[in-house]
Amino acid sequence: MNGNLLTIAEMSTDEILEVLDVTDTMVEVNARRIPKVPALRGRTVVSLFYEDSTRTRLSFETAAKRLSADVMGFSVSTSSTKKGESVRDTVETIEAMGIDAVVVRHGSSGVPAQIARWSGASVINAGDGWHSHPTQGLLDAYTARSRLGSLEGVHVGIVGDIKHSRVARSGIEVFTALGAQVTLVAPPTLLPPNLEPWPVKVAHRLDDVIGDLDICYLLRMQRERMTEALVPSLREYTALYGLTSRRADRLRPDALVMHPGPMNRGVEIAGEVADRPNAVITDQVANGVAVRMAVLYLLLGPGRDALGEIPRDTTVEGSMPDTDTRAM
Amino acid sequence: MNGNLLTIAEMSTDEILEVLDVTDTMVEVNARRIPKVPALRGRTVVSLFYEDSTRTRLSFETAAKRLSADVMGFSVSTSSTKKGESVRDTVETIEAMGIDAVVVRHGSSGVPAQIARWSGASVINAGDGWHSHPTQGLLDAYTARSRLGSLEGVHVGIVGDIKHSRVARSGIEVFTALGAQVTLVAPPTLLPPNLEPWPVKVAHRLDDVIGDLDICYLLRMQRERMTEALVPSLREYTALYGLTSRRADRLRPDALVMHPGPMNRGVEIAGEVADRPNAVITDQVANGVAVRMAVLYLLLGPGRDALGEIPRDTTVEGSMPDTDTRAM
Amino acid sequence: MNGNLLTIAEMSTDEILEVLDVTDTMVEVNARRIPKVPALRGRTVVSLFYEDSTRTRLSFETAAKRLSADVMGFSVSTSSTKKGESVRDTVETIEAMGIDAVVVRHGSSGVPAQIARWSGASVINAGDGWHSHPTQGLLDAYTARSRLGSLEGVHVGIVGDIKHSRVARSGIEVFTALGAQVTLVAPPTLLPPNLEPWPVKVAHRLDDVIGDLDICYLLRMQRERMTEALVPSLREYTALYGLTSRRADRLRPDALVMHPGPMNRGVEIAGEVADRPNAVITDQVANGVAVRMAVLYLLLGPGRDALGEIPRDTTVEGSMPDTDTRAM
Repeated sequence: MNGNLLTIAEMSTDEILEVLDVTDTMVEVNARRIPKVPALRGRTVVSLFYEDSTRTRLSFETAAKRLSADVMGFSVSTSSTKKGESVRDTVETIEAMGIDAVVVRHGSSGVPAQIARWSGASVINAGDGWHSHPTQGLLDAYTARSRLGSLEGVHVGIVGDIKHSRVARSGIEVFTALGAQVTLVAPPTLLPPNLEPWPVKVAHRLDDVIGDLDICYLLRMQRERMTEALVPSLREYTALYGLTSRRADRLRPDALVMHPGPMNRGVEIAGEVADRPNAVITDQVANGVAVRMAVLYLLLGPGRDALGEIPRDTTVEGSMPDTDTRAM
Repeated sequence: MNGNLLTIAEMSTDEILEVLDVTDTMVEVNARRIPKVPALRGRTVVSLFYEDSTRTRLSFETAAKRLSADVMGFSVSTSSTKKGESVRDTVETIEAMGIDAVVVRHGSSGVPAQIARWSGASVINAGDGWHSHPTQGLLDAYTARSRLGSLEGVHVGIVGDIKHSRVARSGIEVFTALGAQVTLVAPPTLLPPNLEPWPVKVAHRLDDVIGDLDICYLLRMQRERMTEALVPSLREYTALYGLTSRRADRLRPDALVMHPGPMNRGVEIAGEVADRPNAVITDQVANGVAVRMAVLYLLLGPGRDALGEIPRDTTVEGSMPDTDTRAM
Repeated sequence: MNGNLLTIAEMSTDEILEVLDVTDTMVEVNARRIPKVPALRGRTVVSLFYEDSTRTRLSFETAAKRLSADVMGFSVSTSSTKKGESVRDTVETIEAMGIDAVVVRHGSSGVPAQIARWSGASVINAGDGWHSHPTQGLLDAYTARSRLGSLEGVHVGIVGDIKHSRVARSGIEVFTALGAQVTLVAPPTLLPPNLEPWPVKVAHRLDDVIGDLDICYLLRMQRERMTEALVPSLREYTALYGLTSRRADRLRPDALVMHPGPMNRGVEIAGEVADRPNAVITDQVANGVAVRMAVLYLLLGPGRDALGEIPRDTTVEGSMPDTDTRAM
C-alpha cells in the first residue's frame, strides 16, 4: 500500500488478502473481554472529516483506540476552512508535528491522494467524493469471505446508484480482484458513462439476475436523485430495484444480502428483508472496526510478522487500585 | 437499573442508595494526587450530544477517563442529522461496533429510552427534553446527603420553572424516593398541568415556605419564558421567586442552597447568596463527576463487590522514563 | 509563570529560558521511536477553542497526549455560547471538576487572563484577539535559538501587519527579552498607534533593512486588510513588504526566514523562498509541540528537577499480548 490506503485499485491482490488475514486476528482481539492491545502505543492518528459522518469517524477512532494509539478527531466544517486554514496548511502542520496517520474524508474526489503527496504521514481514505471508500470495500470483502469461504467465482450484484457511489467503486474493485463476477444493476441514468475499465456485466432489471446472485449488494438511494430527475419516484425505484420480500424470496437460500448503511428501509430494501438471517449488514459494521484495526496495524505497526502468538487474556478484574504510576 | 440509566423513576430506592454509596468511593479517588483508576480499561464510552452542553459533556467524559475507559465524544449538530444519519443509524452502528455505553443528550423526551430499546449497549440519559436528567438528580441527592447525613424527613423546596425542567422532575423523583418532603414553588403558569403522580405539595409564594425549608433548590430561569408571556418580567419573577439576600436571611441557619447551574445571578439567585457557605452549588458540580463515575462503574464495571479495598497511592513522581512498551 | 501562561510580558527572562531548556528535553522525547512519557498521567487538560484553529488545537492536544495527560477538546461555537453557557459558567465547572489546565483561544483580548482570575486551574493562552500568543513566541524563540545558538544581539525584522497581530506582540516580547534587537517593518497603517512601550525600531521599507537582518520574520497578510483599505492591494503589499526571491537573495547567507503559518505563498513570501534551507517554518511547527509539552510539564508536572535522567528506550516491539489489566 506504499504507506497509504487511498483506493483498492492501487492494492495488489496479495495486499488485499493480507488485510483480510490480519483482520481475522483483530476480530479475535475484539472478542476478548478487554478488546485492547498495545500494538500502536505512542502512535498518533488524526481523523480529519471535512464531511460529517459520526458512523465512520466512530469506527476509525474505535479501531485506533483498541490498538492503543492516541487519537485526535476533527470535524472540519467548511466555514473553518474558509477562514484561511486550507487543507494544505493543516496537512503541513500534521507532517511537521510528527503525526503518524491521517484518516481523511472529503467531499471532493482526490483530496486524500493529494494529501498523501504533501505528507509523509500515512493517509487513509475514509471516503472521497464519488471516487473511493477503500475500507468499506475491504470490510465488505471480509464479511463476504467469512461467510462464503472464498470469493472466487462468486456472483455479486451491486444494485442502485452506481454512478454517484464511492462504495460501489470500491466494491467493484475489491470483489473483482478476489475473483468474483460483478453485475451492476441500475437504470442507465444511475450508471457511469464509461464502464470499460471494469470487468463487469450490466443488468437494467434486478429481476433478471436476482436468482443467480450469491451476494445481493444494495446501495443507499439518495433522495436527491429524485429531485435531479434521475429516478422518476421512490416508489418506482423500489418497484424495479428494491429488494422487496417477494424478490428476496427468489434469492438462493445461501445468498447474502449486504448494504453499506444507513439503510432506507422500505426503499432499496424491505425492513423485514434486512432482518433475515442471510442479511449480514450488522456484521459489516462490526467487521468495519476490525478491518480498520488491520489497516492501521499494517500501515503503522511493527509489521505483520510481529503479530505472532496472541497470548490469552490474563486480566484479573477486581478492586480499584491506583495503577497509574508516573515513573516505573 | 437493567443495564441503563434512563430516569430516576425506574430505580428502586436501593439502587439509588447504591449509586450514592459507590460515589463515596469515587470522591475518595478524585481526592488522590493521581485521580485515575483502571476499573474500565478497554471499555468504550461514546457521548452523543444532540444538544450542546460543554459542561455536562465535560463532566461525563472526565468521569469515564478517570476510570480509564476509552471515550469518544460527538456533538451531533442537527444539520448532520438532516443529512440522513438518523439517531437509529448511529445507534445501530454503535451496537454493532461493540461500544459499551452511550451517554445521550437530546432535545426530545424519550430519545434515550428509544435508543435503549434499539441497543444492547448501556444507555445513560444525560438529559432529554423536559423529561429527565437522572445524573443531575443523583448528584443533587448525593450533595444534600453528604451535608445533611440523610434525606429522611428533610423539606426540599424546588423553586421556579417546574413545567419545562427535567432537573425538577429528576429532583422530585430522587428526593421523594429518599424520604424527603418536596414542595414545588412556582406560579401556576410554570407548573405542569397534572401534579397527581407526585407526592408533592405546591406553594405559589416562596415567602410562604422559605422559613421551613432544609433545602432551597432554585431552577434556572430561561429568558424565553418572558417572551412566551409565562412570566410578566424578570424583575417581577425575582421579586416573587428569586432567592434575594433578604429572603436568604430568612432561611434556617443550616439550610442548603442548591442550583443546577448555570446560574442567572441577580435573577433566580442573588450573586452574594450563591457565595454564602451554605450554598453548595460548586459541590454539586464536583460531585457530578464522582456520581457519573459511580454510574459508569455500576453499569460497566465488574460489580460493586469488586470495589474492595482501595490501595494507597504508590506513585513515585520522578524522571521521564519511557514507560510505554508495546509488548510486556 | 504563577501557574498560568498568559503572555510573554509576564515572564521573567529566567522563566523564558527555563521553558526553552525544558523544550530541549521534549525535542529529544519526540525523536524517540515511541514519543510518549508518563509525566502527566492522571492530569486532565481541556482545550477550549472559541475560535476555530485545527492547527493550534492539534499541536496542544498532541503535546498533552505525549505527556500522557487526559485531554478533552472543545470547539465552542458562538452559537452554543449564545445558548446561555457563558465562558464563566464553563470555567466554574472546570474549576469545580478538578481539571488541571485549560488551553484557551478566544477572539477577544484578555479572556484567558479573566479565566485565570476565575479559576484555580492553570490557564494557557492559545491566542486572544490581537493581544498575545505566548506559545507562538516561545516556539519562535526556541527555533531561532536552536539555529543561532543565542539571541543576544541578533537583529530580528518583523514584517507586515503588526497592528492586528498577537504573533507580532509575543514575538517582540520574547525576542527583546532574550537580547535581540527588533525592527518592525510595516506601513504606518499597519503599526499600532503607540510603540513607546517596546524597545523596537521601525522601518517603512523592507529594502532598507533586509541586508542587516539575522531573522526575517514575516507575518500572515490577512485579506480583510485590503477591504478595510489599510493596504492598497495585495500586489502592492508584496512589492513593498513581500519576501520575494530577489529580496531573499539580499539576506545574509545565514539569516533565518520565519513565518507563523499558514503562509500566503506569493503574498508575504514567495513559494520558492519558503522552501530554501534557511527557511525554518517547518521547524517552527515541529518545535511547537515540544514547547507546548515543556509549558504543560512546567505548569502541571512534578517540577523541573524531576526531569532527571532520561532512560533509554527499552520498548520491544512484538506480538499482540493483552497488556490491559484492570488490577495490577
